[in-house]
Amino acid sequence: MNKEDFFIKQFNKASKIIGDDGAVIDGFVYSNDAFFENIHFKKEWFSLKQIARKAMLVNISDAIAMNAKPKYALLTVAIPKEYSKKEIKELSLGFLEVAKEYDLEIIGGDTISNTKLDISITIISKTKKPKLRSGIKKDDYLCFTGTLGSCKKDLETLLNGGAISSSSKFIEPKLNAKFFYEVSKYINASMDISDGLFFELERMSKRSKKGFEFLYEIPKEVGCSGEEYELLFSFSPKYKEKIETIAKKYKVQLNIFAKAIDGKFKCDCKNHHFD
Amino acid sequence: MNKEDFFIKQFNKASKIIGDDGAVIDGFVYSNDAFFENIHFKKEWFSLKQIARKAMLVNISDAIAMNAKPKYALLTVAIPKEYSKKEIKELSLGFLEVAKEYDLEIIGGDTISNTKLDISITIISKTKKPKLRSGIKKDDYLCFTGTLGSCKKDLETLLNGGAISSSSKFIEPKLNAKFFYEVSKYINASMDISDGLFFELERMSKRSKKGFEFLYEIPKEVGCSGEEYELLFSFSPKYKEKIETIAKKYKVQLNIFAKAIDGKFKCDCKNHHFD
Repeated sequence: MNKEDFFIKQFNKASKIIGDDGAVIDGFVYSNDAFFENIHFKKEWFSLKQIARKAMLVNISDAIAMNAKPKYALLTVAIPKEYSKKEIKELSLGFLEVAKEYDLEIIGGDTISNTKLDISITIISKTKKPKLRSGIKKDDYLCFTGTLGSCKKDLETLLNGGAISSSSKFIEPKLNAKFFYEVSKYINASMDISDGLFFELERMSKRSKKGFEFLYEIPKEVGCSGEEYELLFSFSPKYKEKIETIAKKYKVQLNIFAKAIDGKFKCDCKNHHFD
Repeated sequence: MNKEDFFIKQFNKASKIIGDDGAVIDGFVYSNDAFFENIHFKKEWFSLKQIARKAMLVNISDAIAMNAKPKYALLTVAIPKEYSKKEIKELSLGFLEVAKEYDLEIIGGDTISNTKLDISITIISKTKKPKLRSGIKKDDYLCFTGTLGSCKKDLETLLNGGAISSSSKFIEPKLNAKFFYEVSKYINASMDISDGLFFELERMSKRSKKGFEFLYEIPKEVGCSGEEYELLFSFSPKYKEKIETIAKKYKVQLNIFAKAIDGKFKCDCKNHHFD
């Protein structure tokens, strides 16, 4: 067990709420994600605005994947001493832009000066029907949106000193909020793909106590690609057409790749963090 | 204006909720504070358990100062790679101990590996009658609890390589939750003293549009001492006796030090962060 999982395990005994993209309490979803320099990004790879935008979007992605609408955000932002006011303004603009796009309000947080740019965001969302990782039923189809693999490739390019397109999903995740809110009534379980499809499938397998029979082979370059922020969900085969119709409406690519069976799924990717 | 305040200012236009120890929405208070290595603490000064405890307590202090009961916490914890499992366990115990003492549940967060130990905590609290910084009325008494000044001295001792008592408030803040919940019905405005009495008075002055007539002189060693986590509040003189009775019951020292007047208060302390 890696040290992060070991740390999290210490808290599992004291709370049954831990274990999804966010914590569900009385119609609210609380999610929290860190976005730290040299852990999640290197500053040469992003503009400051792009950093702030991605930090917000990876958090909003959790809310969407649980069928919750983000309403409020709290930001911890640790800012390097040498940043100019112009740079600080650019950073704040990234947060504010995304807040506006998703109609959420930044209500507080903490700002400190630090050796590097480290961001932690808490998003407070509202939901009438939260979707969890634990809802997979036997014979459900497993499905992910979009295409997977480009983020792993783009990360490797960056690590080798190359350049990637500014429209790369690694720079800015593409979230399919409207699609998912509409489709959610047909969904049994869901989460976003932040650490890679196979990682997330192991998490869903544990929570839902199900295994997966793959309908086709998924290569490691695809299944182990992290930072994708595509949606991963399961549904009863009887809703396949309804879901496909909604996907077409929002131009969302669907990949039905497995069926839920009795059993367990184990991921054998390496941890995707580059540091 | 320092860079932290400049950053925060960018968000003030978009939200009227920013400006108190926590954000109040529909009976909930959301507060968020960072506790970063080499910014808020150096690891030679604290055990890992003490670090976790203080990170929790400084956040809970915000909730108490707003007359809110902490219910849930989300933790971002960035852990140095070299920490052993034993160390990680000790750290987690500190969080769990305080959660138990205050009857709150740690419901999620994010754990990452990092170059230093950086913690950010969001506390979700419930309140029926939140107390704000903006409530000071003319002729109110201004009061703080306990004694101020020892944290500045202890910090200086530590920075000079000396040792301080493990019962120092700098190591573990002493919160007066029960006292404040009982006294709160007589209180017009409140906050905790995290950055120093004079710093906080300037904040209250801005929010309440009041100045202060001091009843006695407060030296800079006292008024500029940060990390105290004592309570600062205002109340109508007619409740003086009632408040004193409750303070006696909980053995809380009261210091009525100023009267609210028309005007403005400006702090001239240096920023208390040591780095």
